[in-house]
Amino acid sequence: MFRENLQKMIDRVDGGVAGILMGFDGISVESYARATAGPDIQTVGMELAHVISQVRRAAQALEVGGLREVVVRADNLVVLVHVLSNDYFVACAIRPEANAGKARYLLRLMAPQIQSEL
Amino acid sequence: MFRENLQKMIDRVDGGVAGILMGFDGISVESYARATAGPDIQTVGMELAHVISQVRRAAQALEVGGLREVVVRADNLVVLVHVLSNDYFVACAIRPEANAGKARYLLRLMAPQIQSEL
Repeated sequence: MFRENLQKMIDRVDGGVAGILMGFDGISVESYARATAGPDIQTVGMELAHVISQVRRAAQALEVGGLREVVVRADNLVVLVHVLSNDYFVACAIRPEANAGKARYLLRLMAPQIQSEL
Repeated sequence: MFRENLQKMIDRVDGGVAGILMGFDGISVESYARATAGPDIQTVGMELAHVISQVRRAAQALEVGGLREVVVRADNLVVLVHVLSNDYFVACAIRPEANAGKARYLLRLMAPQIQSEL
């Protein structure tokens, strides 16, 4: 069920690379990767779980409210993270030239569906 | 010189809160904050320096190229980070309802100017 959502999202974005539903503990629930070169989505997810936890802790320390989204843009990959709950986030990796606005839109669209099934 | 750039950027965004030019070592070069409530920009900058360093390390580990931008969206504050070099980044804090696209545009516009003066 989750995989279908992830696949739909990634396949609808030109330059979509991979999607993952993951716990902040670094354990992935589901993932989907297009057959393209690039870092392993599980590894990306684990690194994300670590850094997003740190960002969340910083947001708490600064008292700026709950963490909603994080976008990381590197030379060869862009990663969009949408926080679902205290325990889970969903992330989408796209190529730098891909439409990040559309990916974010689809991520936001899909988030409530995934959340309701978690 | 830096302060003028930061001020111009923040004042041009409705809902702009503060801007900071900072070293990854957590020492700020210059900052500008509008007279609004919110967390102290120096504290935000220090937290950012820490987490952005972690994100950069993750990007290196994943071999996805150099880190360019990070956006963090929390309930009460959105922070846009633009990496200038191995040593410095510039960040802009805006309210959640502010135009993040415009803020990002201004940040990108200003980055080369600041970089040339560093």
